[in-house]
Amino acid sequence: MSATPRLYVTPDLGEGLEIPVDSDQAHYLTRVMRLAAGDPVRVFNGRHGEFDASLAASTKSTATLKLGQQTRQQQGVPDVWLLFAPLKKARTDFVVEKATELGASEILPVLTERTDADTVRTDRLQRIAIEAAEQAERLDVPRIHEAAKLPALLASWKPDRVLIYADEAGEDAAKPWGGEAGRAAPAASGLEVLKAPAAILIGPEGGFSPAERKRLRELPYVRPVSLGPRILRAETAAVAALALYQALAGDWRS
Amino acid sequence: MSATPRLYVTPDLGEGLEIPVDSDQAHYLTRVMRLAAGDPVRVFNGRHGEFDASLAASTKSTATLKLGQQTRQQQGVPDVWLLFAPLKKARTDFVVEKATELGASEILPVLTERTDADTVRTDRLQRIAIEAAEQAERLDVPRIHEAAKLPALLASWKPDRVLIYADEAGEDAAKPWGGEAGRAAPAASGLEVLKAPAAILIGPEGGFSPAERKRLRELPYVRPVSLGPRILRAETAAVAALALYQALAGDWRS
Repeated sequence: MSATPRLYVTPDLGEGLEIPVDSDQAHYLTRVMRLAAGDPVRVFNGRHGEFDASLAASTKSTATLKLGQQTRQQQGVPDVWLLFAPLKKARTDFVVEKATELGASEILPVLTERTDADTVRTDRLQRIAIEAAEQAERLDVPRIHEAAKLPALLASWKPDRVLIYADEAGEDAAKPWGGEAGRAAPAASGLEVLKAPAAILIGPEGGFSPAERKRLRELPYVRPVSLGPRILRAETAAVAALALYQALAGDWRS
Repeated sequence: MSATPRLYVTPDLGEGLEIPVDSDQAHYLTRVMRLAAGDPVRVFNGRHGEFDASLAASTKSTATLKLGQQTRQQQGVPDVWLLFAPLKKARTDFVVEKATELGASEILPVLTERTDADTVRTDRLQRIAIEAAEQAERLDVPRIHEAAKLPALLASWKPDRVLIYADEAGEDAAKPWGGEAGRAAPAASGLEVLKAPAAILIGPEGGFSPAERKRLRELPYVRPVSLGPRILRAETAAVAALALYQALAGDWRS
């Protein structure tokens, strides 16, 4: 946790440039954080890394930042998407916040047969992702897609992207993440599914319908995996699956 | 998700026995779920597996269940504790709920130098753990310990229990979970830390103090691990670390 505010901005970044921030950010800097001219800020835009900056000028609803040195080179996240069936509002917010922290590259709300969600407000979720990226020291922000129906998503799927499907119904033998090879190579046999590009699909609280499960299991790019013997809530499964991906195939490895 | 209520109870279980439930559970069964005599319930007590049961008798504040057949044999969870610095109330609740779903065997609130928490209400957290165990189809309930200071916990630590310490400060090279061995055995080099009995230690939002980090790193049973290049919130780190433990050393392997 850093005391210096860290903001996602949209203009190009470069040493010595002056850039405007939006009115919400101006309010945050001047009213919430009570910054004065010259106080430090850090900024990133998803393209040019991270820069030190300072507050150059502000009014009640505008602020300009003067950029100093670049502090980090741009770096992406592993190419793993999160597809999840939206939940009730607070839990949907939670999934988006956590998926951003855990480095999902894109986030796609998916409407399944049993999805029982409030309306999906993509703009609101995008703001949650921006705040989470600011706090997580991430250098980009995952794009929140418009909600789409599962059959439409599958119809346009590019088969070189593995779709890892967390099958909570489970009794017909989804493959455990850790594999069945025992102590000598505990993770090996599950690992062939964990390659980029990938996507993780988490169903709704009521699970996938039998027709959806049958369809998913017929597709050559789909890999069912199990998340253990206990029943996880959907948001827990999303966090667990992304953590496992990053540890075994993503950017927690080095 | 099952429509049949599933309750944690304290009496011994056996086919044909009649057992009382507590007044909150009686209220839940008769007022919330509106069960009538003969309606099905499932029960577990952490010792005798899980049994089918049915509502035998009830008043406004009492209910008796008649036990039918045993549906599952008793089975424990892996011997992994979660030690975490309590957070603001909702996030502490969340950690306890998720740790229960993810199979932590015991949960220990730990007071560190930078812990900034509301009062830790152990009884309240124990009820959250019970509800989470009921929903997760778990057969036991993790014990919530009274909050203790980190130095006291370390002073009485049995060194055969590895203490996996999620070091979010991170720049001085905690070992990544996935190891540095590359693609052929991506998880192997991190795995020696992931053996039972184990405990996972998650610090507060402000991190451990320099003195705490130095002390932890001197102890022979402590293993610092990294949870990747982004800064995770404390509750995210707890969920991620438990998921990795279960996948690599716990009961998600078979």
